[in-house]
Amino acid sequence: MRHHVRGARVSGIESVLVVGTGLIGTSIALALREQGVTVFLDDCDAAAVRLARELGAGVEWPAEGSPDTASGVAPDTIVDIAVIAVPPHVVADRLAGLQRAGAARFYTDVASVKALPLQQAAALGCDLTTYVAGHPLAGRERSGPAAARADLFLGRPWALCPTEETSPEAVEVLRGLIKLCGGEAVEVEAAEHDRAVAIISHAPHVAASAVAARLADASATALGLAGQGVRDVTRIAAGDPGLWTGILSGNALPVAEVLEAVAADLAAAAAALRASSDPAAMGGVTELLHRGVAGTGRIPGKHGGPARVYATVQVIIGDRPGELARLFQVAEAAGVNIEDVRLEHAPGLPLGAADLSVQPEAVAALSEALRAHGWHLP
Amino acid sequence: MRHHVRGARVSGIESVLVVGTGLIGTSIALALREQGVTVFLDDCDAAAVRLARELGAGVEWPAEGSPDTASGVAPDTIVDIAVIAVPPHVVADRLAGLQRAGAARFYTDVASVKALPLQQAAALGCDLTTYVAGHPLAGRERSGPAAARADLFLGRPWALCPTEETSPEAVEVLRGLIKLCGGEAVEVEAAEHDRAVAIISHAPHVAASAVAARLADASATALGLAGQGVRDVTRIAAGDPGLWTGILSGNALPVAEVLEAVAADLAAAAAALRASSDPAAMGGVTELLHRGVAGTGRIPGKHGGPARVYATVQVIIGDRPGELARLFQVAEAAGVNIEDVRLEHAPGLPLGAADLSVQPEAVAALSEALRAHGWHLP
Repeated sequence: MRHHVRGARVSGIESVLVVGTGLIGTSIALALREQGVTVFLDDCDAAAVRLARELGAGVEWPAEGSPDTASGVAPDTIVDIAVIAVPPHVVADRLAGLQRAGAARFYTDVASVKALPLQQAAALGCDLTTYVAGHPLAGRERSGPAAARADLFLGRPWALCPTEETSPEAVEVLRGLIKLCGGEAVEVEAAEHDRAVAIISHAPHVAASAVAARLADASATALGLAGQGVRDVTRIAAGDPGLWTGILSGNALPVAEVLEAVAADLAAAAAALRASSDPAAMGGVTELLHRGVAGTGRIPGKHGGPARVYATVQVIIGDRPGELARLFQVAEAAGVNIEDVRLEHAPGLPLGAADLSVQPEAVAALSEALRAHGWHLP
Repeated sequence: MRHHVRGARVSGIESVLVVGTGLIGTSIALALREQGVTVFLDDCDAAAVRLARELGAGVEWPAEGSPDTASGVAPDTIVDIAVIAVPPHVVADRLAGLQRAGAARFYTDVASVKALPLQQAAALGCDLTTYVAGHPLAGRERSGPAAARADLFLGRPWALCPTEETSPEAVEVLRGLIKLCGGEAVEVEAAEHDRAVAIISHAPHVAASAVAARLADASATALGLAGQGVRDVTRIAAGDPGLWTGILSGNALPVAEVLEAVAADLAAAAAALRASSDPAAMGGVTELLHRGVAGTGRIPGKHGGPARVYATVQVIIGDRPGELARLFQVAEAAGVNIEDVRLEHAPGLPLGAADLSVQPEAVAALSEALRAHGWHLP
């Protein structure tokens, strides 16, 4: 399924160096390889480079000053773009080194904070005309090259933060890179980007950790009563503390501002609850809950635009192989496309419920077809 | 699929009155009907009773002093158990009224807080020997009788909070009721119950609301960058503010204590971030993230026991009817049971990824079978 020449021809991007072959770097490399781009790989961890290479992500970048390597790459190769996929605090230093070596025509990074690497790059005297700070909004709960996927960026936003110094050509070439990876370029000023990710990613992570921290000391009885709600709220708190400390310290002030607002709301709610015999006090809690409802309603739907509203058909299924296959067959025969499916096992029991999301106008046809084939719809 | 006589015979429960035909009350009624129990329905909202009756949840309870009604129930009927499924603040008042009328041999409620109704019942001079406070840990994002399901309690914990005054027979009969509904009785002291649900349900709800409240004022750019993490953290914040104000004020002090601890952790994290150039300050943030990881690790798995570890096989699928059916057929032919499936649409694009959860030993067989049938596994 490679489209060898087309992608490279359309974008003018023929060769890319990926520095840092973790999840994001290797995923970019895989996506570019599928478009026929020549990809070079570099990482201070030799095992990570080897694994990425074995996954088909590209060939090793020759060490500076080294003779020709097994990859057959001349050490004086100049690539179109160097993608710096390392932790936020190290981006500027790597950028300076790559620019000194004249490794690429243009440079970008993928760190989840943007003001910090730009400031540090300026302080280090980097050439800011050829560097466009970037951040693909994509990730997985797993990390490392083994978790990489060529389709990780399909349809996902990819922030680009050009400054006044950035050359228009650099922005245009970077837009081509994002297109090759299947992402959607979003130009945004670096400070606004950092405030945005503080609200939609970094502060929620810390809040989830603070809720999950209560579970660390809770009684076994309490944990035995846990349901889906607390699982959802705390899921991201399972992320790597070392990685997240780096992300948070790289976006310290915007995250601090959001956390202060969240902490103030929670402290006020606690005070209102301690005075809960006073209905006026509880009014503040109700108002916070209403603000929360308004906030969740603003999150766009999974297809990127405004939230698409699906109707849910629930059906009780057994835990046997083949039951879901038959269910989807029946849906297909009824001409119904199942947009999403979520299985909800009853704890400890073989029976479970499947929530099938379909277009609202398909509910009647699907329900009828499922009932006609013996399924139990509660 | 009704087991008419067995359930009633085994438990000695032949008739139950459900007061309050919302989601929980109607679900209990449906579960009991499937076990052959005679169920009476009562609610101050006549439309809710009618809907529950039409769903097959039971027959209407005759108004006090009324002549025989269309349901043919004599107004002096005494049921085995009255289940009071009304908001927390109203439980004791309804209990007192039902006991005055001599409606049942035993009484329970389903409110999500337990100390409050017990205190109020004592203050109202209720007979506490025949009343066992209860709380089934089950729910849905939808509410009302139309969302009710007979299997809502299958394998779910159901807290029972007997006091020193409760008669052993009352506890035994209530355990029989829980068994008929498919739940797992968990005896817990009322105050401990309330502290537990503050940690695993009530405070997480407020914390989710406070995170979601930030989204209410965020820029459209910020919301456009939102990913799965913030969606999960804030999902429960979409719940009904009126309903939740009642729940929170009924468990005010335990919730206040948890929220104060969460707010203190977040305020400390914010202070550390403002001093983030000092590595010692950031140590406190890392430690909070580690406590969060420890907390999430203590949540039991979805099957009730310790978390069952599934492996995930990811496959790229199109948005066409029939593709999932074929996928499940291939899994079945390979003898692999898919334990869970999650579809992840790429925003704005027809392609998506399906995460298939299977037993770890089935990964190789499933991957091979899917590849052999032309699927792309990233």
